[in-house]
Amino acid sequence: MKQSLGAKPLAFPTPVYLVGSYDTQGQPNMMNAAWGGICCSDPPCVMVSVQKKRHTYAGILENQAFTINLLGCDHVIAADFYGIASGRDLNKIDACGQHVSKGEFVDAPCLDEAYLVIECRLKTSTELGTHTMFVGEVMDVKIEADCLDEKGVPDVKKMDPLLFIPGAREYYGVGEFIGKAFAVGNSPKEGK
Amino acid sequence: MKQSLGAKPLAFPTPVYLVGSYDTQGQPNMMNAAWGGICCSDPPCVMVSVQKKRHTYAGILENQAFTINLLGCDHVIAADFYGIASGRDLNKIDACGQHVSKGEFVDAPCLDEAYLVIECRLKTSTELGTHTMFVGEVMDVKIEADCLDEKGVPDVKKMDPLLFIPGAREYYGVGEFIGKAFAVGNSPKEGK
Repeated sequence: MKQSLGAKPLAFPTPVYLVGSYDTQGQPNMMNAAWGGICCSDPPCVMVSVQKKRHTYAGILENQAFTINLLGCDHVIAADFYGIASGRDLNKIDACGQHVSKGEFVDAPCLDEAYLVIECRLKTSTELGTHTMFVGEVMDVKIEADCLDEKGVPDVKKMDPLLFIPGAREYYGVGEFIGKAFAVGNSPKEGK
Repeated sequence: MKQSLGAKPLAFPTPVYLVGSYDTQGQPNMMNAAWGGICCSDPPCVMVSVQKKRHTYAGILENQAFTINLLGCDHVIAADFYGIASGRDLNKIDACGQHVSKGEFVDAPCLDEAYLVIECRLKTSTELGTHTMFVGEVMDVKIEADCLDEKGVPDVKKMDPLLFIPGAREYYGVGEFIGKAFAVGNSPKEGK
């Protein structure tokens, strides 16, 4: 039996995107964002939503670029800190002892401690209300070499992605293998 | 040491959205989509990207509405089937023994077997390339009552959300609790 929770931003799970940008003074910044996702295969695009009041907002528009940096579960303290503190008040990257290097393709910082970094050129921005949705065209994806399996495919157990559960406002890791996509559903009458 | 994978649609994890719509003949349909995410808090909005060639595409535009239905890991076979078969060829919902009811607020079907259903009114659509990004304004969220904890908050262990890992094209469940958001990162110098 279902019950209504009203009109709320709830869906499960969400990613934990650390959005990298240079601010209007050229200082590197990282912001934790759970409102985001992949939004096109070709050209590859990724979306992240940012509030106007965030320090990151002006930096993305100024440089027409951002990065998405993914941290493993062992970096949860830094990931959460990037969602608590503001780049207006301090260099958050220094404050948690992490490091950045300039993007190869765009004017945005890449987080050295991330297992994966996506360099994005700003493609569209849409005002939706509290949040502005930025769509970035992916210029390059870089991954830690030891996160690849023997076939060169990103290995979820090695990446150990962090995910976020809205409502409860909790971080979790990825759990057990459930099935191969485009395979396990071939015979739906056998299953449910 | 990082290595480039090129410009690809890779980020981890992605959700498993079952997108519900009525087609132009009024038949209910569900489509599996991993390219999506929450994109605004107020008004609450959720984004999902659909290829023009999908049967779902015309249905969303015709009805200016869609639902996002979330299935638990025990329904992985149906979830995957919704990404393999096409509503042009058969009623996928019947084919896997599931059921729908009409949305309360929008002209789109809600999947009875889903632990959570989001009713969305189409707000914007943006052509990005292979995919069109549909942003829906959330009209209502309904959840199975037994997926709530004693405080009325969605309980991740009871929902048992399915998630998707692009690249490897595998489904996983949500794993262990890592930390409370807006809390675990309060003292970054103690951690990493």
